[in-house]
Amino acid sequence: MTLTFDLKTYLDRYRQQVEAALDAYLPLGYPPKIYEAMRYSLLAGGKRLRPILVLASCELCGGNPDWAMPTAVAVEMIHTMSLIHDDLPAMDNDDYRRGKPTNHKVFGEDIAILAGDGLLAYAFQVIADRTPLEVPRERVVRVIALVARSVSAEGLVGGQVVDLEMEGNPHATEAMLDYIHKHKTAALLEAAVVGGAIVAGANEEQIEGLRQYSQNIGLAFQIIDDILDITSTPEELGKSVGKDEKAQKLTYPKLWGIATSQQKAKALVQEAKQLLAAFGDRATPLQALADYIVERTN
Amino acid sequence: MTLTFDLKTYLDRYRQQVEAALDAYLPLGYPPKIYEAMRYSLLAGGKRLRPILVLASCELCGGNPDWAMPTAVAVEMIHTMSLIHDDLPAMDNDDYRRGKPTNHKVFGEDIAILAGDGLLAYAFQVIADRTPLEVPRERVVRVIALVARSVSAEGLVGGQVVDLEMEGNPHATEAMLDYIHKHKTAALLEAAVVGGAIVAGANEEQIEGLRQYSQNIGLAFQIIDDILDITSTPEELGKSVGKDEKAQKLTYPKLWGIATSQQKAKALVQEAKQLLAAFGDRATPLQALADYIVERTN
Repeated sequence: MTLTFDLKTYLDRYRQQVEAALDAYLPLGYPPKIYEAMRYSLLAGGKRLRPILVLASCELCGGNPDWAMPTAVAVEMIHTMSLIHDDLPAMDNDDYRRGKPTNHKVFGEDIAILAGDGLLAYAFQVIADRTPLEVPRERVVRVIALVARSVSAEGLVGGQVVDLEMEGNPHATEAMLDYIHKHKTAALLEAAVVGGAIVAGANEEQIEGLRQYSQNIGLAFQIIDDILDITSTPEELGKSVGKDEKAQKLTYPKLWGIATSQQKAKALVQEAKQLLAAFGDRATPLQALADYIVERTN
Repeated sequence: MTLTFDLKTYLDRYRQQVEAALDAYLPLGYPPKIYEAMRYSLLAGGKRLRPILVLASCELCGGNPDWAMPTAVAVEMIHTMSLIHDDLPAMDNDDYRRGKPTNHKVFGEDIAILAGDGLLAYAFQVIADRTPLEVPRERVVRVIALVARSVSAEGLVGGQVVDLEMEGNPHATEAMLDYIHKHKTAALLEAAVVGGAIVAGANEEQIEGLRQYSQNIGLAFQIIDDILDITSTPEELGKSVGKDEKAQKLTYPKLWGIATSQQKAKALVQEAKQLLAAFGDRATPLQALADYIVERTN
């Protein structure tokens, strides 16, 4: 498997399944405007890294990836909701996202706030309603608690609050930066990876290994994001660049320099890959995904 | 029981339990600002009608009300979240709520948006994490799906979108008005009443009766709200009055006149009470709660 594994084919196959599920799980309804707004951001493309991690992790732990599709869709809905709300004028005030005008630029601030709320609620509805009955309900409840925690004040929301406090703050510390990334980025990646494992019925040791793996790739992902914000163009990235500098935010590249930041991201990914050694060859997709995170250019 | 039942004592007892649970379930944490913002609105008092309905319905169907406390807290968190987001400048732009400055007036728009998001996510975390193990997980998953639907585009969010479209709309119809109230008010009351019943293990016939009961009291509640917006003072109501007139919104009193609106609310409540006849004397609390809804003055 190691010799013949092709990450691009693997990602493309899962990405297509995810795109189809996102489209099917959220059809147009009444009132049309809110469904159009939710679909506008949810179906705007992107790498679909989080839902793919859910499916890959479920497969790694011996589950049928179909069992985890509702969790995969839910995690992407929550990611999309966090982007819509973060882009609002009262927050980061961004006009472009994934190369398109942001949700509130197209639908207005009121609808953008409600589209985020709708996607957040819908995420839990999807897991609760659509997870196949082969998956014991104990697991479903545990996944819902995990996903909810990843977006609450213990997760994304808490991370975003500290992120807002960091703007132009001359007293920002490395500890605050770690907090932000652990909560704003790693928490949802953890929900994705561990959520897929729980659906599959993984044991606690496997879950703990995957939790550490997801923390590592979460931090590496954010370091690379910070670097790309400095080194990339809006065309390459599909969103504004130079945002951290403009907002006078502390970042890892600012703290350590770009070269050291890249080395640290690579070391985190190496460690993440080793954490999966116990799974043997079946870990190849998640190991390749870890590499992909530090090698990506957008 | 009918002869000796005292609604005020009943409501006070449950309200105290709910207040204690709200406080205990959401202690202060890091970052403090977001917990303060969530607690500011969640612990701002109010009638706590929705959580009390959860507990009363669970008790009516033979469950231990303690089993339903996490669902009760969740429903109140969602109600609070919808108030915080509805009050935002981009929505109804309200400065006062329950006699206090609105969340964004105290904490800023960014934190108010995030406090709503945090409460919404936390609601599902609470049901999933804290519902006692006496309650089978099948029921927990079903309650989560019900509560999630009540706030998604099929519930609160959809109702708020049509509500925003109604403002100053000369083509507003009674059908749109019904849609708004069914989704903005009745959906969460239904989640409360039916949620409590599901936790208790009610049968499908009981659930259907309680669903119709909640639809009726939801509509009656909203008719009375519309009337109070015309006839009450800000001091009596603890929030702005005359909002519907100012926003040129169609309301039931505008459509039918105040007297007819009151009659219709009373008829809905009468029907709601009859729907619970099969429960016998045990239905007294929920029947008294229905009366309370049309007799309240704030």
